[in-house]
This record gives sequence, structure tokens and C-alpha cells, in this order.
Amino acid sequence: MLTAGVVGAAGFAGIECVRILLGHPGFKLVYASSGHDAGHKVSELYPSLVGVTDLEFEKLDVDEIAKRCDCVFLAVPHTASLAITPQLLEAGVAVLDISADYRLKSAAEYEQWYGVKHTSPQLLDSCVYGLPEENGAALAALQDAQTKLVACAGCYPTASALSALPAAHAGMLAGSRVISDCLSGLSGAGRKLTASSSFCSAHENANAYGVATHRHTPEIAQTLSIAAGRDISVVFTPHLIPLKRGILATVYLDVDPATSLEQVHAIYDSFYAASPFVSVLPLGQMPQIASVSGTNNAQVGMALQASSGTLIVSCAIDNLVKGASGQAVQCANIITGQAQDAGLREMLPPII
Amino acid sequence: MLTAGVVGAAGFAGIECVRILLGHPGFKLVYASSGHDAGHKVSELYPSLVGVTDLEFEKLDVDEIAKRCDCVFLAVPHTASLAITPQLLEAGVAVLDISADYRLKSAAEYEQWYGVKHTSPQLLDSCVYGLPEENGAALAALQDAQTKLVACAGCYPTASALSALPAAHAGMLAGSRVISDCLSGLSGAGRKLTASSSFCSAHENANAYGVATHRHTPEIAQTLSIAAGRDISVVFTPHLIPLKRGILATVYLDVDPATSLEQVHAIYDSFYAASPFVSVLPLGQMPQIASVSGTNNAQVGMALQASSGTLIVSCAIDNLVKGASGQAVQCANIITGQAQDAGLREMLPPII
Amino acid sequence: MLTAGVVGAAGFAGIECVRILLGHPGFKLVYASSGHDAGHKVSELYPSLVGVTDLEFEKLDVDEIAKRCDCVFLAVPHTASLAITPQLLEAGVAVLDISADYRLKSAAEYEQWYGVKHTSPQLLDSCVYGLPEENGAALAALQDAQTKLVACAGCYPTASALSALPAAHAGMLAGSRVISDCLSGLSGAGRKLTASSSFCSAHENANAYGVATHRHTPEIAQTLSIAAGRDISVVFTPHLIPLKRGILATVYLDVDPATSLEQVHAIYDSFYAASPFVSVLPLGQMPQIASVSGTNNAQVGMALQASSGTLIVSCAIDNLVKGASGQAVQCANIITGQAQDAGLREMLPPII
Amino acid sequence: MLTAGVVGAAGFAGIECVRILLGHPGFKLVYASSGHDAGHKVSELYPSLVGVTDLEFEKLDVDEIAKRCDCVFLAVPHTASLAITPQLLEAGVAVLDISADYRLKSAAEYEQWYGVKHTSPQLLDSCVYGLPEENGAALAALQDAQTKLVACAGCYPTASALSALPAAHAGMLAGSRVISDCLSGLSGAGRKLTASSSFCSAHENANAYGVATHRHTPEIAQTLSIAAGRDISVVFTPHLIPLKRGILATVYLDVDPATSLEQVHAIYDSFYAASPFVSVLPLGQMPQIASVSGTNNAQVGMALQASSGTLIVSCAIDNLVKGASGQAVQCANIITGQAQDAGLREMLPPII
Repeated sequence: MLTAGVVGAAGFAGIECVRILLGHPGFKLVYASSGHDAGHKVSELYPSLVGVTDLEFEKLDVDEIAKRCDCVFLAVPHTASLAITPQLLEAGVAVLDISADYRLKSAAEYEQWYGVKHTSPQLLDSCVYGLPEENGAALAALQDAQTKLVACAGCYPTASALSALPAAHAGMLAGSRVISDCLSGLSGAGRKLTASSSFCSAHENANAYGVATHRHTPEIAQTLSIAAGRDISVVFTPHLIPLKRGILATVYLDVDPATSLEQVHAIYDSFYAASPFVSVLPLGQMPQIASVSGTNNAQVGMALQASSGTLIVSCAIDNLVKGASGQAVQCANIITGQAQDAGLREMLPPII
Repeated sequence: MLTAGVVGAAGFAGIECVRILLGHPGFKLVYASSGHDAGHKVSELYPSLVGVTDLEFEKLDVDEIAKRCDCVFLAVPHTASLAITPQLLEAGVAVLDISADYRLKSAAEYEQWYGVKHTSPQLLDSCVYGLPEENGAALAALQDAQTKLVACAGCYPTASALSALPAAHAGMLAGSRVISDCLSGLSGAGRKLTASSSFCSAHENANAYGVATHRHTPEIAQTLSIAAGRDISVVFTPHLIPLKRGILATVYLDVDPATSLEQVHAIYDSFYAASPFVSVLPLGQMPQIASVSGTNNAQVGMALQASSGTLIVSCAIDNLVKGASGQAVQCANIITGQAQDAGLREMLPPII
Repeated sequence: MLTAGVVGAAGFAGIECVRILLGHPGFKLVYASSGHDAGHKVSELYPSLVGVTDLEFEKLDVDEIAKRCDCVFLAVPHTASLAITPQLLEAGVAVLDISADYRLKSAAEYEQWYGVKHTSPQLLDSCVYGLPEENGAALAALQDAQTKLVACAGCYPTASALSALPAAHAGMLAGSRVISDCLSGLSGAGRKLTASSSFCSAHENANAYGVATHRHTPEIAQTLSIAAGRDISVVFTPHLIPLKRGILATVYLDVDPATSLEQVHAIYDSFYAASPFVSVLPLGQMPQIASVSGTNNAQVGMALQASSGTLIVSCAIDNLVKGASGQAVQCANIITGQAQDAGLREMLPPII
Repeated sequence: MLTAGVVGAAGFAGIECVRILLGHPGFKLVYASSGHDAGHKVSELYPSLVGVTDLEFEKLDVDEIAKRCDCVFLAVPHTASLAITPQLLEAGVAVLDISADYRLKSAAEYEQWYGVKHTSPQLLDSCVYGLPEENGAALAALQDAQTKLVACAGCYPTASALSALPAAHAGMLAGSRVISDCLSGLSGAGRKLTASSSFCSAHENANAYGVATHRHTPEIAQTLSIAAGRDISVVFTPHLIPLKRGILATVYLDVDPATSLEQVHAIYDSFYAASPFVSVLPLGQMPQIASVSGTNNAQVGMALQASSGTLIVSCAIDNLVKGASGQAVQCANIITGQAQDAGLREMLPPII
């Protein structure tokens, strides 16, 4: 049994890690930190856990993590991971970073989009981008690496990439622009209180935000460019819709008008044949958020408007699971040699 | 005071007509039909109207309408309007058709998308497409026409067209494809019970539907092609999201990469300067469904990704008001010489 | 045309006053204050009002109110009204207080429940409790009074009182305890951000709060005791449920087991016969929040468990309208000699 | 490994059984019937199960069940269980009946409330009422019985009983009437489409229904009367509120005014000390539906209004789990000698 810790455990991604790890057969959760709630029982903040765990939030303490944890999950805002990851790695702890700090391969691009200096660019090369459906082999190779750093893919980037990767790999993309139009529930905005996340603002409401400026844009572009073997630019429009959990990506891909939908479907089906968490739906069926809510599953569906050579692919995931903590655990499973889906089928029920 | 009737008054668009007309200073609602609920008080079906009106649903009777109504609003499924509109017009009743039967100028295209024969193609020429922001003059001209038929614009087509029309008119569209990605609340599906409209299906859920096949596609394309003066093809993806009322369109327009956002904003601002119901939001602000819910207003916002020459325009409307019955009343106001916004500011509160 | 002002106009009750007054035929809204948002347009904070009004929030300034307003609506937390009401009255402004400061007739009881000193107890006698269905005559008498202070009834107290008043007046109450079990939407908690009012907390959730300690308890008890002519104690349990607007009260009244439901229904019907906003539903029908949402209406229904002599009465209102600002306007209409329902039928659509 | 079947598996309680059993370590789900959907894969109807199970719905066939199943869960409407339970028992299958058919000990009372004849009253004596917190010993005794029939407690009765049982057993109830005011989400109404279960009806709505006539009334009264050792009458008011899952009971108990809240809390705490699924919250904390959603847990909180001798106890459960299928599995665990919580901690995530 490996020991695991969660940094930033009081936030939504953090507590989702806690929920998954508490029921995981291969990890024992021994540490959960929270800057604000240290000293309190986790169940005080999340009464769903009354009677389930007596775990207490602790202060962040890198030495303690190094002493007690084989693996640590960082569910923190960007820059917070920069501040502790190098020490954690040096101490031999495997780091599953759910923040954005190590996702972009170019420190310059990170600095441009996040507006802060990248203080450990030397780690970017060996760090593996945590999207198992794309980087399964690189993740598996970390089993034998001394330094284990996974930059888990972001929520929107996961849904967008799963929609476009098979086409990009198959060389089906015509042109160089991909449009990803995404819908997200409120938990994506995290636990901090904001005017737009209040019930009275969000209920019976929907709107686009961060249009043409959202920080997930370069992350999606990086993934698709690597897969296509050339520069792909991404137009990314996230929308807030009134649900708690879930992301639905609708991605518009330019393809050769001669392409048939059956052909595309076969390519997607084959691409995900070995992936335990991605299902390509039968033609005619589009994915729904409710079908993946609470799970680490992704469902993908597609349609084609042949006349204009437009392939429309839609992917549903749970932003907190496949889009964050479930994916981090999936990566952790791989880099520790466990079954990819260990602890990700039967789980404690969602607590957010 | 003109007299008005509503056919199909028990459905969502119909009862929305009833709500608006009951508070209208220039129309007196004297007739409301419902095939299923004839003989019942409107307030039995919609208890919001207890103490507000004693109106009863009647059977559909064209002679009665002809006798009692100056104007009639048809809130019926397609083909139901084909069945009665010619007689109503002959009897001198002004027809505001909220169905799709007379929207497409080509009977052949209607037959292709709707799968039924168009039985009165001779009316398509004189019929005015009811989108006052585009066809205000043609609607005003109906004041003096003997035959008054308005094919009110559909809900998604209204939001999509309001997003793209200023650009199309200004000759800003590069290429010939426009993508309209739309979100709609459940009331768009009408009052009939279906598995996908049950609370337990729709709540905490979202999905695309009718992708590349939805009947509003040719309607949007027709409007934009007329405005652009050339064929524009439309990729249209509607999504169901968990709210009662409202549509949010996010439209992707290819433009010259040299275009500036300020330039676009000025063009939109000027296009809608005289429109009492369309507001172009300041740059940096995107429209929200909650800001227009229950009203006949539309709000428009935009962003530009200059590198790829992609203009993203978003428009929020209430599908039952500006997307259906409010727009029909706006058209009726114009063709009867009333102020365009008569009865469309202060209204009875929404009852759905 | 009388002039009106709103203090605390940026909060939910305040902006609801703004919405109603902007469409009122007898009041011209000339002043809206907000401590936090002074200097900003109302439409910046509430984009629903873009294109509707150019009104700006001002700083609170009693002299300005006295100069410009015939009537002022105080949509403020308790104690804030104590601080300005005496000056406003002295300056001859009619005060419609939506806060709790003058509702309890006993300053001692106020101090016990609100934990602060009452600084103008001399006003409690002449102040009229603003529940027009109970105190219509006293409100009308204010037309000729020099000092016009109305302590508008609270949201839960309105729904609870409307459920129990006819029985209390009719001498039907057996025993001396009334149970009021109430459900409220999130807008009742106001605009300030709290953990429990975030979307992710409130959605798919419900809970009782303030059980046996909520400050509306003595207010309900005072109203029912006056009506019954003897002390009635109240057990009051408010619940938070996941909707924006609306209160549903379910009130349990002990009655003589020989009482018949038809008898009770007739008593309620007759009690509200002249009330323009309260409907007693036919036997067998219970009120729904959606039927009154956005309106100043109340709907009342009832059932009887004869074996135990328990009368169950349920009342639905919109907490922001009949439970706050609509009721305040209804009271203002009465004390200024306007029709009781002026500006309360056709209104600008709700903006929260 | 025991084999299990689910009758009525396409309904909400049925599919919830399927979800739980698919992840259960001690039961293998080998049979699922659906009258309407026989021949279809379960995952066609519930796409959450795509990639999870290939199970197909079968026709109801008692012989097949007898041949293949050790245990069967009946998730059927009342009378449907009467029709097959005697045969199933005779064939030696353990029956966990989630319907109401065997809950009332008096066939006459059943006939009075359900309006149909009870066709196997001879089973009522040996049948155990499936509320493990009350009848744990009787359930355990079924391990050695030849005929194993459990009439699982209903959803409202479970939440109501868990709120009142400790007080009833402790002889704390003064008077003979208990009021249970309950809130339920829409899934309680089942999968069948009705006007009141459509999204547009239920969203932003709430109402009481079945007031003084709901069939769960005698079931609650029976449980409390047995516990109190004398007749207790129940006033039961269910409300529909806009959420998918969950019940919140708020129960009003008359107690001696001298009772202290600490005393009551200690009694409740001790009553549930050995129950793995019921948590008594610390004083000052009331239960929330979100804290138990998706789980088999119940949370209980309480407050006291000493002046009137009113104890208010609130209990939150998930109606489909602790209120239906989870409780049925809990009972099945007990009667088959498994750990009471086998398969009820880590589960497949909810699919409704």
C-alpha cells in the first residue's frame, strides 16, 4: 500500500482527490493540507464525510510530506506548485500536479499567459503531460524514473483534446485552426466565493467568458499541435452553465469534404479501443454530461456537415474527475504500476 | 383597441402570447384556442393566472377568429399553420405565424427539411420574415397591405442572425461558412412531455442534439445569405442546458485578420442604434441569459482572435419572448402602426 | 406623479424596488443609494437594465432624499433604518421600511431578538405594520397623518400570517401553538456572498436553518396573537431550497376536530374576498411557488386531518415581491391614495 | 458469491439497485427485468453504463428468477409484488420488496389506503419490515428462516422514522400526534413522465402534495406506534422541491417542556451508536441533503423550543439509496450474513 497526500485538500479538486483516495485500494491517504482550514476535521468542512473519516487538515509542510508520502497530489492554484514541486521531487516524492504550472512545455509561453516567471523551467522537459490517452507510454516510463512529475491535463484541455486527438493523429485536420466551444458547471470555478458563482447569479443563467483570452487556449493548442505534427491554432470559448459538475466540449474540425462519417467513427473507435475510460458512442448518439457525472469516464460523439467539410465532435467529462483529480489518480496508478483504473470504478459517492 | 386571438394558446409559445397580450395597451385578447384543453379556463392549466383572467380555451374555429379578431397569433407546430393561414388571410385577419411554415422562401427547401409538402407556396413571396431588426421596413409596409402575413423568425435563428447580421451587411464575412453554437433552455422543447424534458433527465445535464441536421439551419443560412448578398452556409449546433428560458448563441465568423475589434464594435453599435430591443454591450462584456430572461431584449457582445481572423459574437435572448411570442407582438405592433415596443416593456410576469 | 427613492438599492430587495418603481405609473424613481456602488450606473451592476435606465447609484444622503423624494423605501439591514428613519420622518418623507427595525411593537422584544438597542421606540406606536390584508384600514388612515412610517412585514411572516390569519380571526385556533414550516429560495439570503449561497452549496441541496431561533418568530407570533386576541406561540422552521425566488409556508393549526374543510375554505375565501393579491385556491389544489414567482400575488390552499384536528394551510409568495418590495409598494400605494395594485400587475420582468 | 436479480430494473429504484449491485463484492447481478425495455441493453436506456456493463433487460419470468437468483429485489409499483412474491418465496428465493405491498401489518389498512385487495395476507406476519436501525435483530433472524421476505421501508417513512424513533422508544413523546413535514426531489416520483415532473414545471417551483392523504402516512404511524407502545397518529405533508435526489424530513414532536436538548441529543446518539449509516450531528448543526446524496447514509439533527415543548428533528437521506435500493441491499446483506455495509460504501457513481 502506497501512501498519498493532498495539498490544497479543502478546495474542490482537493476534496475530490480525498474522496477518491479514501476509497482507493492501493493508496492510503495519510496527509491533507489546507492553508485556511488547518486544524479542522475534513468532515467539519464537508459534512458528507461525517462518519466516514476523521482526517484533519494540516498546515502545508514539505518535510512532513517527504516523510510520510510516496505520492502527493497538488490541488493548488498556479505558482503554488512552482513553490514546492522542486523540493518534493528532490525528496523523492512522486508529484501529481493538478495545477497549470508544468503543463506548457515553453516557459516563455507560460510567462506570457500566466503573467508570472517560471522558476523551475529545468523540470519542463522531464515532466510528463498527464493525459493518459495520449501519453500512456511516457507515464508508464515514469515507473522507473527517479524523478516523477506529472503535469495533469486541465479540465477544458482534456475534453477538447479527447475530441480532436484521433483526427489530429490521423492527419485528418484540414487548415490550421480548431474551434473548441465548451460548457462548464460551476465547480470548475473552485470553492472561492465570487459574484458569478453565487446561486442567484448562476441559476437560470449562462454566458461565455474569457473569450479568446482563456489560459487553457495554449494548452489545447500544444496538445493538438504535437499530435498533428504542425502548428494548430485554437479558438476556445468557455461558457458557464448552471450545473455543478461537468464539461461538454463541442469541437469544430475542418476536414476534407470527401471524408465520410463512418470513416471518422472507425478512426475514433480504434484510437480509444484500449482506453478504459473513453467510450465512443454509436453514430447518431451525442454525449451527455449526466452520463459521466461523478465518474472518470469520457464519452465522445460526432456528426459531419459534409457540404462544408466540418466535423463536429463532442466530448463529455466530469471536470473534477476526468478533468482533474480522477485523471491525476489515473496517472498515479500508471506511474506506480497499478491497474490504470484502480480506485476509479467503485468510489465514495461525490461530495460536491 | 384591436382584437387579438391566439391559436395553440395552451403551449409554451401560446401562453407566452397570452401573458403579453393580457397586459398590452393596444390589443384586447378575445380568443384563445387549444385542441386539448378547450372548455377549460386558462387559469386551470396555468394557475399563475388565477385571479388574473377568466379566459377560457376554445376549440379552433377559423370562422370565429375571422369574426372576432383583427390579428391572430399562430403558436402551432409546422403544417398546422399551412392548414389555416390561407383562410385567415382571405377573411382579412392579420396573421402572425410563430410556426416555421412560411419562413423559408423556397417551398422546395421547406419540403426537403420538413419532409412535408408546402400547400400554399403562393404566399411565400408576399409573406414578410418577422425579424424587425432586419425587415423593419417590409413589416411597416404591411400596414397598407391587404394581406398581412408575418412568418416570425425562429428562436435560434433570431439569436444567430442578431449575432451575424451587422457583419454580413458590412461585407465583413470572409469565406462562406458561419458556425452557430447555441445553448437553449428546456422551454424551447415545448410543453409536450418527453424523456429528455423530464427534470431528472435535464437537471445537471447538457448535450448537443440535432447536430448538422436541425431545421433551423436553412433559416439561418437564408437570413445571412440575403444580408451578405451571396451564399453563406451554416453549421448549427444546438445544445440543451438546464434552465427554463433563454438562448445563448455563440457565433464564429471568419473575418480579415486585419480587422480590429473596435471597428467591429462600432459597426454593430451603429447597426442596432435605432433598435429598441437590441443592446450591444461595451467591449469586454459578454451577454448573459439572465439579463434578458422574461424580456423582449437581446444583448450582444463580441471578442476577436486576430491571429486566426475569428470573430466570436454572442447574443442572449429569451427564447419565448424575443425568440417567439414577444417578437410576434413586436411585429404585430409594427404592422398595426403601434409603437414597436407597445406592451413589451411592462408586462405580466412570466408564467413558465 | 410622486417622487420616490430607494435606500440600499443595490441589494436584492432594493433592486426589486427599482424594478417595480421604474414601471410604476404613479411614482417616479429619482434616487437610489448604495454604500458600495455609489457612482456606478445601476445597469453596470444589473445588466438587465442596460438600455432600460441610466440611473446611477448615489451615496446615502438624508438631505438629498428629503429634498427630492415624497416617499422612500428602505431596503437595508436592521439598525440601518433606525439610523435614518427619524430624520426622514421629520423632513416629511413617507418611509416604507423593508427592514425589521419597526416591526415588533415591543422595543424590549426587539432588543432581545436582534441584540441591539432600539433607538427610537417612540415611533413604534404610530408606525403601521405593513401587511395590507390585515392592516388595510390603518394604512389608509396614514393618508392624512403627518408622520408616515410603515414597517413592511417580513417575507416569512407574510406567508405565515396569510396562512393563519383567517383562522385566527375566526376564533378557530385550538391551543396556543402554531407551527410554521417554510421553504425559501436563495434570494432571501440577500446579495452578500456566503458559503451557503454559492451555487455548488445550494444546488441539489436543502436544509433547515435557524430552527427555533429565527428572528421572524416573534413577528409571526405578534401578528397571530393580535388577530386571535390572545397569546399564540409560534414554532418556526425555515428551510433553504434550491430556487432563486419564492417562499412556501406550510402552517399547522390545531382546530376543533368537528370543523369541516368546507367551512374553513369558506372562511378563508370570505376573508380574502376583497384582497386584490390573495387567491384562495379551490379545495384539492395546493399553491405552487412558480404560480406567484415574479408577482405580488399570494396563493393559499388547505387540507384537514380531521382525526387529529389538524388544519394544514399552505401559502406561496415571491419573497422579493409580496415578501418585500412589492408589498412595500402596495403599502405606498395605499398611503398615497393610489389604487392598491398600481404598478403591481404589469411590471418590468424580474431581474434577479 | 450470491446471485441477485432486479425486477423493474428500468425504473429509478430498479436502476439504483443495478448500480449498487454491479459494484457489490458479495452479490453478482445476473438478472434484470423490464416490461417495457426487455431486449435492450441497460446501457441503451442509461448511457452512464456504456462501457460498464453489457447486461440486457429481460422479460419478467419467475421461473428464470427462481433458477438463477438467490435474492431478488422487487422495484415495482404496488400490486406487482403481490403478484409474484408468493411464488418466489415458494421457490426459495429471498425477496427484498421495495414496493409497499407488505409494509402494513394489517391487510385491512392496506386495502383502505391502497384501494386494492391484499392477496397474500398470510405472509404479513413472517415478513420483516426492512428498516435495519429498528428491526436489525428480526432481519438477522431471517438468515435461518426458510422463507425470507423483507418489506423494505418507504422513502418518507425511513426519514420520518429515523427522526422520531429514538424519542418514541425513550418514552419521550407527549400527546399522540406527530407531524412529519418532508421535502423530496423529483426522482421520488419515478421515471414515468408526468406534467409535474417536467423540467419546466419543477424547476424554480415547490409545493405540498397529497396533504393528509399520502399513503406513507399509515406506514409512519405503524412504525412509531410500535416503538412508542401505543397509538401515534401522524400528520404527514410531503413537498416536491427542485432537486433530483434526496429527502429532508422535519419532524415535530411534543415533549415534556422540562426536557433538555442535551438530554435528547444523548438519547439519539446512543440509539444510533451501533448503526453504520446514521450519524447524529453535533448540536447546532442541521442535516443537509447534499451531505447524503448518492450514499446510504442518514444524518440527523435537532433543536428544541422549550417554551412550547416542541422538539424539532430533521433527517436527510437519499431517497433512492437509504430510502429505497441502498436500504434493500443493506437488508439483503443482513439476511445473507454479510457485513451490513458491504457494497454500500464505495459504489459506482449515481447514474440518475
